[in-house]
Amino acid sequence: MKGEFDSFMQKEIYEQPESVVNTMRGRVHFESNQVNLGGLRAYLPHIRRCRRIVFIACGTSYHSCIATRQLFEELTEIPISAELASDFLDRRCPIFRDDVCIFISQSGETADTILAMRYCLERGALCVGITNTVGSTISRESHCGVHLNAGPEIGVASTKAYTSQYIALVMMALQLGDDRVSMVERRKDIIQGLQQLPAKIKEVLKLDDQLQQLAQNVLHKEKSLLILGRGLQNATCLEGALKIKEISYMHSEGILAGELKHGPLALIDENMPVILIMTKDSLYPKVRSALEQVTARRGAPIVICNQGDTNLSGEYRTIPVPEVVDSLQGILNIIPLQLLSYHLAVLNGVDVDFPRNLAKSVTVE
Amino acid sequence: MKGEFDSFMQKEIYEQPESVVNTMRGRVHFESNQVNLGGLRAYLPHIRRCRRIVFIACGTSYHSCIATRQLFEELTEIPISAELASDFLDRRCPIFRDDVCIFISQSGETADTILAMRYCLERGALCVGITNTVGSTISRESHCGVHLNAGPEIGVASTKAYTSQYIALVMMALQLGDDRVSMVERRKDIIQGLQQLPAKIKEVLKLDDQLQQLAQNVLHKEKSLLILGRGLQNATCLEGALKIKEISYMHSEGILAGELKHGPLALIDENMPVILIMTKDSLYPKVRSALEQVTARRGAPIVICNQGDTNLSGEYRTIPVPEVVDSLQGILNIIPLQLLSYHLAVLNGVDVDFPRNLAKSVTVE
Repeated sequence: MKGEFDSFMQKEIYEQPESVVNTMRGRVHFESNQVNLGGLRAYLPHIRRCRRIVFIACGTSYHSCIATRQLFEELTEIPISAELASDFLDRRCPIFRDDVCIFISQSGETADTILAMRYCLERGALCVGITNTVGSTISRESHCGVHLNAGPEIGVASTKAYTSQYIALVMMALQLGDDRVSMVERRKDIIQGLQQLPAKIKEVLKLDDQLQQLAQNVLHKEKSLLILGRGLQNATCLEGALKIKEISYMHSEGILAGELKHGPLALIDENMPVILIMTKDSLYPKVRSALEQVTARRGAPIVICNQGDTNLSGEYRTIPVPEVVDSLQGILNIIPLQLLSYHLAVLNGVDVDFPRNLAKSVTVE
Repeated sequence: MKGEFDSFMQKEIYEQPESVVNTMRGRVHFESNQVNLGGLRAYLPHIRRCRRIVFIACGTSYHSCIATRQLFEELTEIPISAELASDFLDRRCPIFRDDVCIFISQSGETADTILAMRYCLERGALCVGITNTVGSTISRESHCGVHLNAGPEIGVASTKAYTSQYIALVMMALQLGDDRVSMVERRKDIIQGLQQLPAKIKEVLKLDDQLQQLAQNVLHKEKSLLILGRGLQNATCLEGALKIKEISYMHSEGILAGELKHGPLALIDENMPVILIMTKDSLYPKVRSALEQVTARRGAPIVICNQGDTNLSGEYRTIPVPEVVDSLQGILNIIPLQLLSYHLAVLNGVDVDFPRNLAKSVTVE
């Protein structure tokens, strides 16, 4: 079943040019710049007039919420919260009839996410499920939802499910925002960006050999790793760090670059490995300033940047990825980190499909 | 000015039995179980009928929001969001006239927090400032607020300001909730807990020698440290990890125990130092289960627990702290971590009042 690949995880990383298409198939209409998620259509008026949208998920699925939260805020102007399911339950968070709660889980069987959904159902909120598994508990018990259609994911570390969750949430934001005249051009840019994704993901996958070298020559023996970024790339930092934790057993942490001066900058010296995500968006100047702060403390960051970024001199190690509209850049940026975590794990002799201590679906609290 | 102490930070840690009293003075009436924050009184009806409360802060101040968010939710039943100021600005988060925004900053001059406040003022939200500095920008430009009265804080790593911010926010939640009959007993328990704090903080400070030994004998040579907890102690984990990052330059990370199985558990083995916060509250059984998970992977966690916890056999290293009502336990639990970060820094030869790369007030973006 793994075909030419050494592991399911590697296969699933390489499937992403197709799995993202499968998630969009029949839903995104590139000629008319329309999005139509059949399962949500009847609920759109309800969702558009809600008091707030609350995303609830665990692990990687939670990161897909963080990644797309800003686009929801921009296109819908509805207040958005993102909650870790276990923390949401621990806090017994107030939920009301005019809230819309969106539950994201690859398996649709994540225990904390299911319990959080039942908690919200009891309180009368509209519950939307986003899963990769038809017939799963979350699919069955939610009011409506979106299936990812990404195909089965076997590797414990989620890869293609993350990019498909990201796209499902982007499609949902696009559809919710499709009644706003002021957003017509913006929506069109994003829909055209969606169309370009498969080709651009293939380009990113060509970095595989370079990333294998980077893992082997630079990062393999390190104990710690900080992944820095901000804005739309905050989620990429968190998700990249989680991948590396999960299968490479290296203590990696995603840190918001805007928080550096409030503490984490003290960790930076010539010995602390740093990856900085500095692709081009409106925050590029601020991330450049973070790059300078790190360099001034003798850090030698590896920079994930756009191809042809002429502001980066030869002194930096770079991972150049194609440019795409800002809201989708995180889909391209996570792939080098997926590949890097994979190579670090292989170098450490880990069975990447079954890292120690973890299960694919967390079906207990 | 440091008197008998070696540094301002050490002095400020030891001032906490008095600084918490100064924050409460004239505001908490223990005989009548009432709280009266003069600066907020005129705005209470407005705040009680708002659409949501948004906390906005950076660094340690942000952690005081995370620590008290649950109490606000419990006593007010208003939806609460907590935002890092830089991320809030990066996202251009939607804010409305019926939102109440609370800005927390020790200096009242934190650049990102000020910019976020001006952004919210422009959008017509009620802005509440919580600072330790009379006449600061946030004090002057906010509609209303609370002064901490904790006395000047000189050490770059915030200690007494954190516990006073925590108390200021608890007082605010108590006052907002004082019209609810169903909460009379709960409020009374918390107000009585506030009265017990100074004596209990003094008890925690007696652990200093034990913590110095722990730093020297167990943690000093380590490169990484995970601090685990959940619920009300999530903030303690984040804040403890930040202290250790800031002045000890050790890569410490606060991790929500409920997320362990979604990835971080893979990091746990006999070599990874772990501190687990397991004081008695409603989540105690769940945290015990995290303890078992860590132990099953041959981890040897240091456990911050309540004095006389008979469930913990002699096999664990423990840091026993007095018990107080759950909403205030985080004030006692953070102090051992402040002391630990201090001793680790001293052992590393760091000037604890001026850690590398950091400034006391971050007055640039």
